[in-house]
Amino acid sequence: MAIIVQKYGGSSVGTVEKIKAIAKTVTDRKNSGDSMVVVVSAMGDTTDELIDIANKVTSSPDKRELDALLSTGEMRSAALLAMAIKSLGCDAVSYTAYQINIKTSGQFGKSLIDDINVDKIKKSLDEGKIVIAAGFQGINEDGDITTLGRGGSDTTAVAIAVKLNGLCEIYTDVDGIYSVDPREHKDASKLYEIDYEEMLELSSLGAQVMHPRSIELAQKYSIPIYVGLSNSKIRGTIIKEESNMNMENKPVTGIATSDEDIAVTVKDIDGNINLISNLFENIANKKINIDMISQTAPINNKINISFTIPKIDLEECLNILKEHCDIKSQVDIDEDITKFSIVGIGMKTTSGVAARMFKLFRENNIEVKMITTSEIRVTCAIKHEDKLRTVKIVANEFNL
Amino acid sequence: MAIIVQKYGGSSVGTVEKIKAIAKTVTDRKNSGDSMVVVVSAMGDTTDELIDIANKVTSSPDKRELDALLSTGEMRSAALLAMAIKSLGCDAVSYTAYQINIKTSGQFGKSLIDDINVDKIKKSLDEGKIVIAAGFQGINEDGDITTLGRGGSDTTAVAIAVKLNGLCEIYTDVDGIYSVDPREHKDASKLYEIDYEEMLELSSLGAQVMHPRSIELAQKYSIPIYVGLSNSKIRGTIIKEESNMNMENKPVTGIATSDEDIAVTVKDIDGNINLISNLFENIANKKINIDMISQTAPINNKINISFTIPKIDLEECLNILKEHCDIKSQVDIDEDITKFSIVGIGMKTTSGVAARMFKLFRENNIEVKMITTSEIRVTCAIKHEDKLRTVKIVANEFNL
Repeated sequence: MAIIVQKYGGSSVGTVEKIKAIAKTVTDRKNSGDSMVVVVSAMGDTTDELIDIANKVTSSPDKRELDALLSTGEMRSAALLAMAIKSLGCDAVSYTAYQINIKTSGQFGKSLIDDINVDKIKKSLDEGKIVIAAGFQGINEDGDITTLGRGGSDTTAVAIAVKLNGLCEIYTDVDGIYSVDPREHKDASKLYEIDYEEMLELSSLGAQVMHPRSIELAQKYSIPIYVGLSNSKIRGTIIKEESNMNMENKPVTGIATSDEDIAVTVKDIDGNINLISNLFENIANKKINIDMISQTAPINNKINISFTIPKIDLEECLNILKEHCDIKSQVDIDEDITKFSIVGIGMKTTSGVAARMFKLFRENNIEVKMITTSEIRVTCAIKHEDKLRTVKIVANEFNL
Repeated sequence: MAIIVQKYGGSSVGTVEKIKAIAKTVTDRKNSGDSMVVVVSAMGDTTDELIDIANKVTSSPDKRELDALLSTGEMRSAALLAMAIKSLGCDAVSYTAYQINIKTSGQFGKSLIDDINVDKIKKSLDEGKIVIAAGFQGINEDGDITTLGRGGSDTTAVAIAVKLNGLCEIYTDVDGIYSVDPREHKDASKLYEIDYEEMLELSSLGAQVMHPRSIELAQKYSIPIYVGLSNSKIRGTIIKEESNMNMENKPVTGIATSDEDIAVTVKDIDGNINLISNLFENIANKKINIDMISQTAPINNKINISFTIPKIDLEECLNILKEHCDIKSQVDIDEDITKFSIVGIGMKTTSGVAARMFKLFRENNIEVKMITTSEIRVTCAIKHEDKLRTVKIVANEFNL
């Protein structure tokens, strides 16, 4: 008899029929002897629809109020799933972030979970109830409703699993983690196991399956996560500690691509380390996630500096730049950026992986605009038009 | 500089454009020097739509979960209005029932407000913010979300006004209280003032403008309520203490009709007071609101007893009756019931009002199925088909 924390994503609870099907699955699992906690996302496209309404009210919705608005999507699906389960004769109770004290800190729209008081959940489980928790949300120390960022329900589920010392299962509309997004490469192979670090790199780099912070949290507390298709027997993927028994030692485990970023280049600024660090600090203070950075060698003590940021943060970033330089003359925006990454624990021990990739790029005339690397990852910024071609070439080279 | 507590109903916040218009009105009022608290209902038909979804999930949705579901409608409109106000350059903050500690007791779906901790509201007002509160909802002592019943946002507004010692203004889609529903009688006249008791009778009897409990609460604490059309200069109605200066002393102030009830007749049961009081106690315990009661004189110690209940409570009521008598043989249901009421403080001092009405009924061949009276009201159950004819005849007789 284990404690199971399941999370169902928006597409898995997108219709009344799907909610009823999940109610049946969860109830069957409970009747087989497990204690069940279920974290739900908002139904289907609810979050996007709410953002649309907010944008109709005002072009720049207040962030506190936007979070208050968005949090209602998950509350609704939690209440509906609890009803559906109760109608099957199994006791259930839905909880909002307030009710189970999901404490958060940090900015609205991308807050972090500090703690969850699981006493109420434990009590309900002891009473034989299935607990449904609204994902994606928390309450900060001012008592405001906050949200955890897109995909944040994954983090809610992992955090609850950590606190309950339970098993975590993430159900979604894909049947596991693939080496390459199957929409980009139809021959992609499924990974039945993947290491936390690899998964973290892949999900941070744009593989949409999991919320990166949920992987970090699971890794920190060594909670394995199962990722699979909702209401299906198809075997999914387990995300867990690196296996020492990995005999194969493939250098590259997966490919991730992302079209969500743009490159910003600031030209001819003083090559003054104070100025530059100050600039990046101000950007970081706004919680804008700078990813790739490259800097030219100084000419007459003037440098060019390029970096990528999420498209949605462009306006805020430009405001910060305005305080540092005359924006019209000195800032270039390149929107034709696809981030292409290869990831693999094997890179730690296999040299020449990046070299193999760049050779392929050269042979196939793929332009590389920027490069960053980590111990287990190489990321290049390439043109949108080269994306699918690059995926195919690299997937074939590394047998993905 | 007064504290104004305004409430805007669902049709007043039914679209983004309406929300923006209200934001403007509220901001202008605030800029003119008043401290503003705004209570909002769910947008348009949101509540009905949520009930529909719940009914698709299960034919009898769990009441705790239904309340959790419905409460999200008001949260959304509160957040959207706060955004709209902030976009006009005026500071604003939205609060859910949790955040301002609206404590409730009683049953889900029709809970009562016990108290509101207005410290947070006062602090925000002191900081110059416009406070937007989600209406219709509260939190019970178990920490569950409850709702106050249809129209409950009125009660939220009055309760906040009571606690802040503020003025209360209810904005809706009608421009005030009429002696008769203008949809039923086009010559109805508007009442610029009405006494709490009269309004309470009218709203309890089916005049949909105000939530009856909001009137009781306002009366208890002598808070006058202004009722008017949203975003309009048309003079509305003030609900307040009976005016001693009322020279006119009209016996009848208004007419109310309701098609929401049905009559239940239990036949040939023992005329045993214990049995009967026990029956009504059980019905009351389920918070089913029995309105009109009539009982025949006993024959062989057997009596017939009739009463009206809201249509929606029929099933629950029949379950209770099953425990008391063999339902098939002994219970009659009459669905062809319109409750027709005349209300007026003047009835206290003018005799023969009921007699005048019954004479009219006799002359016009209007069948009366049941009768109840109070000090300031006479209610008859008549046939649906006689409703509009009766309204016209009685309105003419009493000059409404």
